[in-house]
Amino acid sequence: MTLAYRTPLPPETLAAHGVPADWRYGMADRVRFRELDVLDHVNNAVYLTWFETVRVAYVRDYGISRYRPEDPRMVLRATGAEFHAPLHLDDEYIVTARSTRMRRSSFQMAYGVFSGGRMAASGHAVIVMLEDDLRTRREIPDAIRQTLAARDGAVQE
Amino acid sequence: MTLAYRTPLPPETLAAHGVPADWRYGMADRVRFRELDVLDHVNNAVYLTWFETVRVAYVRDYGISRYRPEDPRMVLRATGAEFHAPLHLDDEYIVTARSTRMRRSSFQMAYGVFSGGRMAASGHAVIVMLEDDLRTRREIPDAIRQTLAARDGAVQE
Amino acid sequence: MTLAYRTPLPPETLAAHGVPADWRYGMADRVRFRELDVLDHVNNAVYLTWFETVRVAYVRDYGISRYRPEDPRMVLRATGAEFHAPLHLDDEYIVTARSTRMRRSSFQMAYGVFSGGRMAASGHAVIVMLEDDLRTRREIPDAIRQTLAARDGAVQE
Amino acid sequence: MTLAYRTPLPPETLAAHGVPADWRYGMADRVRFRELDVLDHVNNAVYLTWFETVRVAYVRDYGISRYRPEDPRMVLRATGAEFHAPLHLDDEYIVTARSTRMRRSSFQMAYGVFSGGRMAASGHAVIVMLEDDLRTRREIPDAIRQTLAARDGAVQE
Repeated sequence: MTLAYRTPLPPETLAAHGVPADWRYGMADRVRFRELDVLDHVNNAVYLTWFETVRVAYVRDYGISRYRPEDPRMVLRATGAEFHAPLHLDDEYIVTARSTRMRRSSFQMAYGVFSGGRMAASGHAVIVMLEDDLRTRREIPDAIRQTLAARDGAVQE
Repeated sequence: MTLAYRTPLPPETLAAHGVPADWRYGMADRVRFRELDVLDHVNNAVYLTWFETVRVAYVRDYGISRYRPEDPRMVLRATGAEFHAPLHLDDEYIVTARSTRMRRSSFQMAYGVFSGGRMAASGHAVIVMLEDDLRTRREIPDAIRQTLAARDGAVQE
Repeated sequence: MTLAYRTPLPPETLAAHGVPADWRYGMADRVRFRELDVLDHVNNAVYLTWFETVRVAYVRDYGISRYRPEDPRMVLRATGAEFHAPLHLDDEYIVTARSTRMRRSSFQMAYGVFSGGRMAASGHAVIVMLEDDLRTRREIPDAIRQTLAARDGAVQE
Repeated sequence: MTLAYRTPLPPETLAAHGVPADWRYGMADRVRFRELDVLDHVNNAVYLTWFETVRVAYVRDYGISRYRPEDPRMVLRATGAEFHAPLHLDDEYIVTARSTRMRRSSFQMAYGVFSGGRMAASGHAVIVMLEDDLRTRREIPDAIRQTLAARDGAVQE
């Protein structure tokens, strides 16, 4: 592979690596030695960090927050992963992200990890938008709602 | 608190720290600087590592595996966490574990993180028992089934 | 061991676990599964995190900084570790810290990791005190200088 | 930058990014959210993991070990880092490695982290070659000695 790493990949590159077309946002990376555990495969908690890495880029690139003082604070309410095939040292993978559902002040994301042409892991997260006090919920602006619906097909609940 | 750290706590100690009685297995620890992220609270992936720490001790103490060559290989099929209240530097917490459901060759666990008398986070995992080839499923022995039912009230499905 | 974990231990407890008397500050902990790497021993970078954990407590307990806005900002200029014996899952250890040398606006610390009655690893760090701009050096106050000299035998250079 | 990530870069690419010519081996990567700490810069222990990531690739690419059963076991005896400038979220960097000195059964490596055209951090490690018992030292083969001298200018002590 001569993938651009840690950079959003164009749709044709995602498709060429076996990522289904309903994933529009994905970045490539490679398994590091420290991400393995004694069992010689990627440790479960590491997948959440991969989801976080792609989420931070996604949130910026979709215009949800630029992490400026005036932007909403975003907090994770829940997250998880399912493991379909183990990953090993130096394996290349593409981690994908999309928004699936929106409520008044929260939205749900799905994640995928694709390697060797198949989905090695999947995941999800529920993200809540808050005011600076980190208590008061903040409504998702309409512009963002439209972006999530248009780009990812996220459904309003 | 003068808790014994990283050691299974007796039921009365769990109760004294606000852990409901249906949790029989828990260990205390304290938030480290490196477990925080830029937002100054414990990072989401760290909770999975806490669940793993208690799970490894639980699996040994319940006699599920002593990690010897003849013991079953255990692999995580899924895991996740829900966050109810943030944790900060030096917060003391008790992380609890129990088995909730059993199938032929897999079982489901629940986790809790208690701090300041309330549940700060909860979690779950699905664990599959495998032969050495890491492919063939291995049945859960009856003795273990009985232990999980007797100690934790785990239900056979 | 029935050690108090993650709490500064009294001198007699340190002595009882083989820590030489020139270490006055140490805390106990236990190796976690995630701290191991594929080689089944504690990964090298983890030792720096242990040094950091004890350093953060030391800095607070010695009154060097309480991490309030008016306190000096402290930045690591260098750090390192030497490994004398590997550590494994569930090994109990005591990580110790002391200040060894002071300059105008920086001081040097030494660290030790003791397990099974011997030193398993040692380490060091150079810490610089800065103003809020994180550029201008800030002189170490006399009161702190006296504390580091009196408690740890730190030498003014 | 349109760098190939996590892949050894050709000399002209290293030079174009301000890496001095005495570094022959380097790979690019980018700072992740989880690598930051509360102070909003890359945490000190993370640099050791970056050195490890490049070291594992270096050891393979220089033919020192392919991590097969018959290959020498390599253990870190010491490692450390010096910090010259902080790194922040999404900063791109090149981490470089070279061997500097060789003894009978150990060799010393140096590391660099280059970002924005300057060296942001440097580091070192002492690596010992051992037999499978992880106790008996194993002599460095002549072929490897010649490689380290020819490619990196490593000096025999």
